Amino acid sequence: MGEEALLFGVWRSPFSRRVEVALKLKGVQYKYIEEDLGNKIALFLQYNPIHKKVPVLVHNGKPIVESQVILEYIDETWQGYLLLPKDPYERANARFWAKFIDDKCLPAVFKAYWGEEKEREKAVEEACEILKFLEEELKEKRFFGGESIGMVDIIANIIAFWFGGFEEAWGTKLLTREKFPKLTNWSHEFVSNSVIKECLPPREKLIAHFRNSFGGANASK
Amino acid sequence: MGEEALLFGVWRSPFSRRVEVALKLKGVQYKYIEEDLGNKIALFLQYNPIHKKVPVLVHNGKPIVESQVILEYIDETWQGYLLLPKDPYERANARFWAKFIDDKCLPAVFKAYWGEEKEREKAVEEACEILKFLEEELKEKRFFGGESIGMVDIIANIIAFWFGGFEEAWGTKLLTREKFPKLTNWSHEFVSNSVIKECLPPREKLIAHFRNSFGGANASK
Repeated sequence: MGEEALLFGVWRSPFSRRVEVALKLKGVQYKYIEEDLGNKIALFLQYNPIHKKVPVLVHNGKPIVESQVILEYIDETWQGYLLLPKDPYERANARFWAKFIDDKCLPAVFKAYWGEEKEREKAVEEACEILKFLEEELKEKRFFGGESIGMVDIIANIIAFWFGGFEEAWGTKLLTREKFPKLTNWSHEFVSNSVIKECLPPREKLIAHFRNSFGGANASK
Repeated sequence: MGEEALLFGVWRSPFSRRVEVALKLKGVQYKYIEEDLGNKIALFLQYNPIHKKVPVLVHNGKPIVESQVILEYIDETWQGYLLLPKDPYERANARFWAKFIDDKCLPAVFKAYWGEEKEREKAVEEACEILKFLEEELKEKRFFGGESIGMVDIIANIIAFWFGGFEEAWGTKLLTREKFPKLTNWSHEFVSNSVIKECLPPREKLIAHFRNSFGGANASK
């Protein structure tokens, strides 16, 4: 039996796309299976019985779940392109920022986009304060990973591409060039990369999906 | 200048104690600095300006924060005792469970201990459902790490020791031998280890602290 990598994902999920980017950067051949989340198939549930969510990477029959865990697995399993730097201190820094994005940044940003109308102004302010840390961390670097795309950039894919979709769908604007010149430049640089481009969902389809799923701008009560 | 490892911690924090356990298992000499959280010193804030919390490990002048990130750093920096297994798939599994404990298990358990009185029964039930996954993951193993203590065991220190303190302080009982025979055995095994013993806070002082800080059993409204 040859090596087999299956990826269960959802086209619009930045978390699924993270794994695709990592596999493509490493040059790993994989089979992608679009998961119908409304109608989860038995095979997929068997692979991720605890969280029941995508992405799931199945490598030679063994499932790995949670996008950050999968990225570390990919980096340790396949040689070539490095997602994490070699130096332990730089690796710790990358893990810190990856965790910061998922644990601090995303909940604050989601609250700013979808939170209660009357609390929105405060939520936007708080989200911007958190994004400011990322703005500063970019320093004069091209990517969070330095001259090339690394794990933090991949984790931050949602900022570079999905935020724009949220903003077009609902109007709440977080990532302005005035407030976040470095993050804005980084976003352009990131989505212009040829591998990243292959792993982005169609923009109009994504925006239409947001509008349909959440009932239009500022629909939350 | 020789190698220098400073650990900023708080005596009662399971997160600080995780780092101490890891350093001791590796045989790393370090200086421990008890942090007064009510009166944070400038040095400490300089090391962790974003989260402003312990633990912070400062290795040769460079700060590392977030207990899971610190454990990975320790494992990559010092040879000898392995906190994570060598095999990439087993490493991914360990990272999955470590993340599961911090992201899913602890919030559910805290809600069961401190949540609204009227929602407590449901919260206890939900916390037990989540703990059940850990019970099953232990299988017939002595530790989550197999025959010896690994990263998941260290992350789960709060279950092995602090839960007992919460339960004595407030009465809400989650971890019964009937429901969780494996987790109960594992807890005894874990706290009986000589390195772990050195890194546990005094039980009576901890319980008194919980009672004083949260106003006694079921004080939340």
